[in-house]
Amino acid sequence: MELCDPTGPSSSTRCRCQGSFCHQPAARCPFKRAGPPPHRPTVGGRGSPEEPMGARLSSPPRPHLPGSFLLPHSRADIALIGLAVMGQNLILNMNDHGFVVCAFNRTVSKVDDFLANEAKGTKVIGAHSLEEMVSKLKKPRRIILLVKAGTAVDDFINKLVPLLETGDIIIDGGNSEYRDTTRRCRELRAKGILFVGSGVSGGEEGARYGPSLMPGGAKEAWPHIKTIFQSIAAKVGSGEPCCDWVGDEGAGHFVKMVHNGIEYGDMQLICEAYHLMKDVLGMEHDEMSKVFQEWNKTELDSFLIEITANILKFKDSDGKYLLPKIKDSAGQKGTGKWTAISALEYGVPVTLIGEAVFARCLSSLKDERVQASKLLHGPKTKQFSGNKEAFLEDIRKALYASKIISYAQGFMLLRQAAKEFGWTLNYGGIALMWRGGCIIRSVFLGKIKDAFDRNPELQNLLLDNFFKTAVENCQDSWRRVISTGVQIGIPMPCFTTALSFYDGYRHEILPANLIQAQRDYFGAHTYELLSKPGVFIHTNWTGHGGSVSSSAYNV
Amino acid sequence: MELCDPTGPSSSTRCRCQGSFCHQPAARCPFKRAGPPPHRPTVGGRGSPEEPMGARLSSPPRPHLPGSFLLPHSRADIALIGLAVMGQNLILNMNDHGFVVCAFNRTVSKVDDFLANEAKGTKVIGAHSLEEMVSKLKKPRRIILLVKAGTAVDDFINKLVPLLETGDIIIDGGNSEYRDTTRRCRELRAKGILFVGSGVSGGEEGARYGPSLMPGGAKEAWPHIKTIFQSIAAKVGSGEPCCDWVGDEGAGHFVKMVHNGIEYGDMQLICEAYHLMKDVLGMEHDEMSKVFQEWNKTELDSFLIEITANILKFKDSDGKYLLPKIKDSAGQKGTGKWTAISALEYGVPVTLIGEAVFARCLSSLKDERVQASKLLHGPKTKQFSGNKEAFLEDIRKALYASKIISYAQGFMLLRQAAKEFGWTLNYGGIALMWRGGCIIRSVFLGKIKDAFDRNPELQNLLLDNFFKTAVENCQDSWRRVISTGVQIGIPMPCFTTALSFYDGYRHEILPANLIQAQRDYFGAHTYELLSKPGVFIHTNWTGHGGSVSSSAYNV
Repeated sequence: MELCDPTGPSSSTRCRCQGSFCHQPAARCPFKRAGPPPHRPTVGGRGSPEEPMGARLSSPPRPHLPGSFLLPHSRADIALIGLAVMGQNLILNMNDHGFVVCAFNRTVSKVDDFLANEAKGTKVIGAHSLEEMVSKLKKPRRIILLVKAGTAVDDFINKLVPLLETGDIIIDGGNSEYRDTTRRCRELRAKGILFVGSGVSGGEEGARYGPSLMPGGAKEAWPHIKTIFQSIAAKVGSGEPCCDWVGDEGAGHFVKMVHNGIEYGDMQLICEAYHLMKDVLGMEHDEMSKVFQEWNKTELDSFLIEITANILKFKDSDGKYLLPKIKDSAGQKGTGKWTAISALEYGVPVTLIGEAVFARCLSSLKDERVQASKLLHGPKTKQFSGNKEAFLEDIRKALYASKIISYAQGFMLLRQAAKEFGWTLNYGGIALMWRGGCIIRSVFLGKIKDAFDRNPELQNLLLDNFFKTAVENCQDSWRRVISTGVQIGIPMPCFTTALSFYDGYRHEILPANLIQAQRDYFGAHTYELLSKPGVFIHTNWTGHGGSVSSSAYNV
Repeated sequence: MELCDPTGPSSSTRCRCQGSFCHQPAARCPFKRAGPPPHRPTVGGRGSPEEPMGARLSSPPRPHLPGSFLLPHSRADIALIGLAVMGQNLILNMNDHGFVVCAFNRTVSKVDDFLANEAKGTKVIGAHSLEEMVSKLKKPRRIILLVKAGTAVDDFINKLVPLLETGDIIIDGGNSEYRDTTRRCRELRAKGILFVGSGVSGGEEGARYGPSLMPGGAKEAWPHIKTIFQSIAAKVGSGEPCCDWVGDEGAGHFVKMVHNGIEYGDMQLICEAYHLMKDVLGMEHDEMSKVFQEWNKTELDSFLIEITANILKFKDSDGKYLLPKIKDSAGQKGTGKWTAISALEYGVPVTLIGEAVFARCLSSLKDERVQASKLLHGPKTKQFSGNKEAFLEDIRKALYASKIISYAQGFMLLRQAAKEFGWTLNYGGIALMWRGGCIIRSVFLGKIKDAFDRNPELQNLLLDNFFKTAVENCQDSWRRVISTGVQIGIPMPCFTTALSFYDGYRHEILPANLIQAQRDYFGAHTYELLSKPGVFIHTNWTGHGGSVSSSAYNV
């Protein structure tokens, strides 16, 4: 079964084989469901020159390779614990790429079910105990956990450690909090075990056909897992895998968390565009769908824009559009919130993700909003009198400019985290990891990769010439959209915070000198003079002010 | 020494005796530095009818009361540990109100210094050990800690507990994190000690002449400390104290934290007004000072507006305005950040405080901004062509409306915290506590108190008729200011987020239905139909979608 239309690499012929999941020129689609993948590596058989020798796995000739998957003496390349849909799909993906996977699950009957059903006809083997699983693994042993974040991860680690040897590798592919991953890295290093926390993005379908993988932790583990990880990851461009080593300790899960935060931002930006189209321009769903479809051929080309076009035109069984029937109370699972909290903790103005999270919070106050909508009046102006096509283009540019700000802020947070934790992060590599396979995958991320290729030390995306020019080209539109939306009464928390950030960031002088003066006035917090950097001064503003505040609470 | 101008109760004759600290009609100024306060209660001698009998402290006739402060057999009403400026001032304040305070400090020499200097001629007594301090206290013993938040608090608690008896009271008046206070409450309750965490606001001067006090924790302690606390607190109106019982566990410190967050918001709003005056209207400092002075006679009448007027006109020793010489990098000590983090944790859209914290973060990236200012261009439009006086009034209204939103959000957070922790909070009482003595003190807080008096169950300030009408009256101005600032390129993160919140809050339908559809499309997160509340549905949008996501990571 060949699902791709291999007519060429142009945007319009990109592969749509997986319901828009694949974001490839069709000719390079990695998502062919049937048939062997074009390249079937055997782990250990293709150590690249940059891999240390110790990284090569011993590769005994495998007898009857095609049929060896059911033999009891098989030695598995890797084990995976946790046979919910993510785990199952990741196993099948590894199997497709020629790796022998040993499956285990706490409820052991699920192993047999999986082998008899989803994994039937594959090389996947099963284990009915952790001991059996470990005995079937080549050394150094590689074990992926795909279990619920939290105590389940610690529980399995505790059970595994006594069964493992120095140099064995445990990989947590769940949605763990990055600080947990850092803690586990350190605890396991003390026991000689290499721990890796890997972000896995792309949902079930990504897991099955090519996720974005963001591994971090004990770097000595990387040569032993690189081949597997990069084989199963999504591919972009000329086959570049959306997986590379992220950094030390919890860096992989931190980067995944920021990915999710950015995802919140992207989704809210699309909502604001949709709101403006619907309530300022009065557009119908089919018409809006077509606009998003067109936008997907521009700089905005991305998975989320594409599915928005599909969602807008989707009709319910009664022939009516489904979208307006859906309750406007957005849920969340926490990673966007974690990103915003991290931004606050590390003092990075990641305002757009913060607003996106808060927008979901406000949306969920549905009953209160219904009540408020009956009491609180909006502006008198409710009519748009301009040119519709021109305003649509303004909205597109406002969305694009806001998106640039959001990613600039996200990378600011990554940079600050690297500083806080002493991680060395490869920013271009991160952009490439997000370029395909995950929810925020887009052409845009290729441009970010390019910017970091031009200057790996780039301090801020906005200082790169491509993005600087892009924002400047959009700014008139962006300002018009906000001005119009504000007059008509459309909430645009992310469009506006992005512009405030841009206008603040490009101001040499902000009014924060007044804050410093106020703090010194009422709390003797001191301030710095522009002319005397590093010297902190207290002024007795009132003629009877107090002493310098650092001593207000000592003992 | 009589510092007040007791000419009457009107705004223009308000007492300025403490460099704008006192926010009273001059006739009722509580900040007279010398001479006995008008009313000198002896603790235990004035148990009010609502106090339980057990609350009355035994009050043995005190021999030679006026001169008893140096006698070794004095029995103190209360002890205070931590003789930095806050502690010293709070002791002197209690002394002024007739209470005998026993002072202690870890570095014991400081006790003697204090008695020989600042406390000379007062009734304050000292102790050179915790044992001695405890022996000098009436029962139940009342001990205030004014030490640095964190381990110092726990250290003193651990040393005190063995010296105390069931029913004794420890009060933490420092800037502790509310969760620490909750933990301490619970730990000490198990040991029979009543623990109170009290927010203390107003800085050194507030501590000395009338702070805002926000005590919470073990409610059984309240009758024993109420007289002291309400005596020394700031007074407003017809002598109402800015101190009442806040609620259980860490409620006092939580409310203090939200106070500080709101303070961040108020300060940033004033900065945005200042920025617009300076860069859109091109006003000089003296002129801006006069405007803020005028605004202080309107609904904006508040301590922060008043000191802004004073700061703007303040001249350095060279005769030039000081403000523009101050570096525009705002510092922070954490409580604003904690408020924003709490808002995210409990899912409350407290967007304005969030933006105010982030605005300080952005301001502190001074070097990067200087670099960016040379590269990034703003809009071509830089001239304001409208009527200056009218625009000034627009700015004032934008500030007022934004402030209403900020306080509405702050009280939303309080309400949610009460829900999370099972606290019963007295919202009107909190407004009254903030009405005087603290940094955010204002006439405005009296209006909030009125709103909760009208309806103690008020769900949101914006649903009160006074505030609803106030915002509606401001909204045209507010929208004009933002529209103009956006076109000219002035960053207004708090003005704009406030308006986005208002416009979002009053929308029955927000575009979050699209977020729900997207989440269901790529992650099978399910959504709710407007027509079927409580029923969650998954749509197979692509014809090959996955299962419902709650099972994606089980074991």
